[in-house]
Amino acid sequence: MTGAGQRAPNTAASLALPVGLALLTILSVWRLKQFKYRLINETGGAMFYGMLVGAIVRCLSLVWGECMDNMETVCSCGGLNSTPHMFTGNITSHVGNVTQRCLPVLTPYMETFDPEVLFNLFLPPIIFHGAYTLNQKRFFANLGSVLTFAFLGTIISCVTIGACVYGFTRLMVLLGLAADGDFFLTDCLLFGAIMSATDPVSVLGLLSELRVDLDLHTLLFGESVLNDAVAIVLTHAITTYSQMGAGHALDPSAVLLSVGCFLGVLAGSFLLGFIFTVITALLTKFTRLCENPLLETSVFFLLSWSSFLSAEAVGLSGIVAMLFCGLSQARYTIHNLSSEGRTRTKQLFEVFNFLGEIFIFSYMGYVLLIFPCHVFKALFISGAFLSIFISRACNIYPLSFLLNLGRTAKIPLSVQHFMTFAGLRGAVAFSLAVRDTSSEVRRTILTTTLLLVGFTIWVLGTAADPMLRCLDIRVGVDAEENPEDLCSEVATGRPDTTRGLWHRLDYKYLKPLLTHCAPSLTDSLPQWCGIFARLFGSPHVQEHEEQLFETKPDDSTFDLEKMEDQLVSVRGDSGSEHQEDLLEGDLGLGTAAALAREA
Amino acid sequence: MTGAGQRAPNTAASLALPVGLALLTILSVWRLKQFKYRLINETGGAMFYGMLVGAIVRCLSLVWGECMDNMETVCSCGGLNSTPHMFTGNITSHVGNVTQRCLPVLTPYMETFDPEVLFNLFLPPIIFHGAYTLNQKRFFANLGSVLTFAFLGTIISCVTIGACVYGFTRLMVLLGLAADGDFFLTDCLLFGAIMSATDPVSVLGLLSELRVDLDLHTLLFGESVLNDAVAIVLTHAITTYSQMGAGHALDPSAVLLSVGCFLGVLAGSFLLGFIFTVITALLTKFTRLCENPLLETSVFFLLSWSSFLSAEAVGLSGIVAMLFCGLSQARYTIHNLSSEGRTRTKQLFEVFNFLGEIFIFSYMGYVLLIFPCHVFKALFISGAFLSIFISRACNIYPLSFLLNLGRTAKIPLSVQHFMTFAGLRGAVAFSLAVRDTSSEVRRTILTTTLLLVGFTIWVLGTAADPMLRCLDIRVGVDAEENPEDLCSEVATGRPDTTRGLWHRLDYKYLKPLLTHCAPSLTDSLPQWCGIFARLFGSPHVQEHEEQLFETKPDDSTFDLEKMEDQLVSVRGDSGSEHQEDLLEGDLGLGTAAALAREA
Repeated sequence: MTGAGQRAPNTAASLALPVGLALLTILSVWRLKQFKYRLINETGGAMFYGMLVGAIVRCLSLVWGECMDNMETVCSCGGLNSTPHMFTGNITSHVGNVTQRCLPVLTPYMETFDPEVLFNLFLPPIIFHGAYTLNQKRFFANLGSVLTFAFLGTIISCVTIGACVYGFTRLMVLLGLAADGDFFLTDCLLFGAIMSATDPVSVLGLLSELRVDLDLHTLLFGESVLNDAVAIVLTHAITTYSQMGAGHALDPSAVLLSVGCFLGVLAGSFLLGFIFTVITALLTKFTRLCENPLLETSVFFLLSWSSFLSAEAVGLSGIVAMLFCGLSQARYTIHNLSSEGRTRTKQLFEVFNFLGEIFIFSYMGYVLLIFPCHVFKALFISGAFLSIFISRACNIYPLSFLLNLGRTAKIPLSVQHFMTFAGLRGAVAFSLAVRDTSSEVRRTILTTTLLLVGFTIWVLGTAADPMLRCLDIRVGVDAEENPEDLCSEVATGRPDTTRGLWHRLDYKYLKPLLTHCAPSLTDSLPQWCGIFARLFGSPHVQEHEEQLFETKPDDSTFDLEKMEDQLVSVRGDSGSEHQEDLLEGDLGLGTAAALAREA
Repeated sequence: MTGAGQRAPNTAASLALPVGLALLTILSVWRLKQFKYRLINETGGAMFYGMLVGAIVRCLSLVWGECMDNMETVCSCGGLNSTPHMFTGNITSHVGNVTQRCLPVLTPYMETFDPEVLFNLFLPPIIFHGAYTLNQKRFFANLGSVLTFAFLGTIISCVTIGACVYGFTRLMVLLGLAADGDFFLTDCLLFGAIMSATDPVSVLGLLSELRVDLDLHTLLFGESVLNDAVAIVLTHAITTYSQMGAGHALDPSAVLLSVGCFLGVLAGSFLLGFIFTVITALLTKFTRLCENPLLETSVFFLLSWSSFLSAEAVGLSGIVAMLFCGLSQARYTIHNLSSEGRTRTKQLFEVFNFLGEIFIFSYMGYVLLIFPCHVFKALFISGAFLSIFISRACNIYPLSFLLNLGRTAKIPLSVQHFMTFAGLRGAVAFSLAVRDTSSEVRRTILTTTLLLVGFTIWVLGTAADPMLRCLDIRVGVDAEENPEDLCSEVATGRPDTTRGLWHRLDYKYLKPLLTHCAPSLTDSLPQWCGIFARLFGSPHVQEHEEQLFETKPDDSTFDLEKMEDQLVSVRGDSGSEHQEDLLEGDLGLGTAAALAREA
């Protein structure tokens, strides 16, 4: 509270800890980097400090021995884990109640970390920032490949991990380490779905540290951003399926419903995210909001965040909505913002992203040590460790082979190796696992997930640098994207019939509707839509598309933008042959490039 | 939570409401302003929408008639209000429990608004932003007057309101409207302390809309920022006094303890705020943190916020710590930041300030209508309404008279009238009142406070514009501060012995220690401090003080800064004679200016 407290200042004290932790993380990781020790990044550091604090709190609680006994009693009674709010419940009610009597000092730290609030506040800006700052041109150039990896790849991952872990659980039954009904196939598939979400936060951290080849960057980051969406919706579908009581037998109607739910949630979330973009774009296009950058930024921020909150409120996936909102805001709304508004929105989300990342990873480390109901199953964990490598290999190599059949610029074997290797897991996997800890299976999943997250971040994250050198993928290049390169797209960028449906929709209808870009809406819409076209058409159409593409280099006068540009605009030497398949609408399958040459 | 929810998405839904409300407020206030209807500002609009939502929720609950009966039953039993957490308790436990059975849709909106979290998150940036963006030169030029109004004025206010309201409570006893022991003098003084906090948020909103004379701006805003600190600490001291069971008799030892507590909390909070500034300043001075604006901004933000949280955690006043932290950060640390870091920190706090203001005022409007245990005492409320005007007059006129004896630039009568009039109350008064609603007296205080806040913001806020015209104080001038004017200070700005102790400490020791400013620490410290001076002295001292003052106009290349400059840099025509008393160290009492002329 605000005044000098006459009562225990719980909230402030419990907020002071993560803030102090974040400071410690930022400063120590930054010092380490100054000493050229680039292996540990912020995410790893944050998780380490979280674990440290968890360990200290744990040790302090051990001092009150009888207290711990009480806690064990509470934890061992299974009945406590019955609601979906369970994790919150665990920390706030049960541990809280027990410790309140014995550990008045520690109570705030064990009480107020509500993962739901944490994820509602910090995950959206992280996801949004990832989508918003994605190099649009590269992304759309590689869209086909990215979508293949994100959709097909995630489903392959999920099934492979599920099958592999299921095998191990059967082994556990054979060895007498588990009862027959402990782990169903659906539980293993659920774990597969949770584990197939590679983390954009840690992947981005890794990539920005290492400055890899730009195509590899787009593929890896695009995949990790989109596969979150797929993994979340898969998790939801599998949960729906198993809640229908069909946990152990294959029920066709339940499968159908799950598939329907998968598609419905995905489409619904996509649509909701897009609706908020349309609102923001129209608001910034037709009002003079951009005259006041503070209002502009606030409205942009609140509307984008609303896409997450509304999706969650109506039972859709907030992350998926936020993701598509971020992608489409960067494609349309950004053109309507003032130059200062553009910088401000990026900087705001950048700070939120940076701090959110640190808070979430510290929290993960903290939960790993403080969660009182961990279930360690050695065989399950071993199976999981093995499965994430197998699944990654089953995902990347065959899909790359198939994609290379269509791509002009093949995905080289070395890049495939690195993509297999760089499947870091993080916040989304954790948030999916922590959502429900009501049964022993779910607690096993949470424990294993946390261990895997820690392992991938520390071990794989640290090994990435030597791995890149070993695979001879360019590291440490710091060239900026050639501006001429950006314009080359414009030169050949007229909308011809060879472009896909998506591109025509985008170029002829959405851009004119949502931005001031040419062509005018009156030109692209049929005659009978005249009123609509005049109503929503731009009063001052920007005749030359160049103007739009220039908005990108314009931004780079700001340091932030430069930093971000460095991050995404590193071009590979071997990229000369890539250049031709970077035409928008190519979808990364090489066909458009070939057709453009013919034209 | 992050995934597509299989359970009621409570947190998201309850976050979606305030976010939607904030959007509605921003857009409609902005539209109103476009139509040149400048009378309602964001704070008033936000409060209005908050009340609207409160009214809707209230109406919807009335539909469930039997439900409301239950609620009344719960509310009328006094026993529910026994802990200091009461307000939270009211909303979360009692209303929550009652409504959970009947109003599943509304429950999230009645449950999760925890004022403590709200104030811990949003009030610090608001206060910090106010202090951080205060025109330093003007502030220090008028420091004497500002401090007089803030300290003496607030104490006068507190006593006057207390006495006036006590008179009305005696009247209530005489008329049989209250029992003899219902209201003690300490309760009335407590109300006086709560009500004497004029609100920087609404005052700033008012001033930025109206663009008043710059000296009036500094006096009003400086007073409103600092008197929060005094009011908070006074409230704390009076609470301490009444908790010692000396509620109805004058106990000298308790009075002494309260005064000690007052001074202790004030000094402690001041010191803590300053310690965090020292940490930030040394960190940014001696490390190369400023090479990375993102890190710089994050560290600056987290350390500043830490001053609030640590103060609250150790039982001091977070707002006071944050206030002094903001003032000193703007005086020292800002010189160590990179130019981008400076813009970023300001923009970040600006957004937080803007959104925080809207959230807090919507929340106030909401609570006004949704709080189930309001106690309306017509005579108490009338007394309070009368007393705020009387107290304001007793505060401003006599003190202005005394100050004018010492000031070269007198405070004109018209400015005094406007200062008396512009005593808007807001977030801090509310936060002090809502802290404890355990007794009927405290609930009466909360209700009255909310009504007074609404009244001052809507009625006084709206009448301010005609009032200014009527008093003939310059409005709507948009000139920027003359840069030469800034340098004139430097010309006569050498540290001579006529300057006060504070100025010598600041110029000779603190600035060289915390920034790269001249003189070097080795010059200003005595010989025997050699090691210390070499350790903390700047490796590259900026020889010319001009360089430092230039940092201010430098910033104004950014639009934000321009906006803020417009806000504070409007000079009065009648200000020509003011110019001479604006020398730093004058403390607004006119003596330094006279001495400077003699020199």
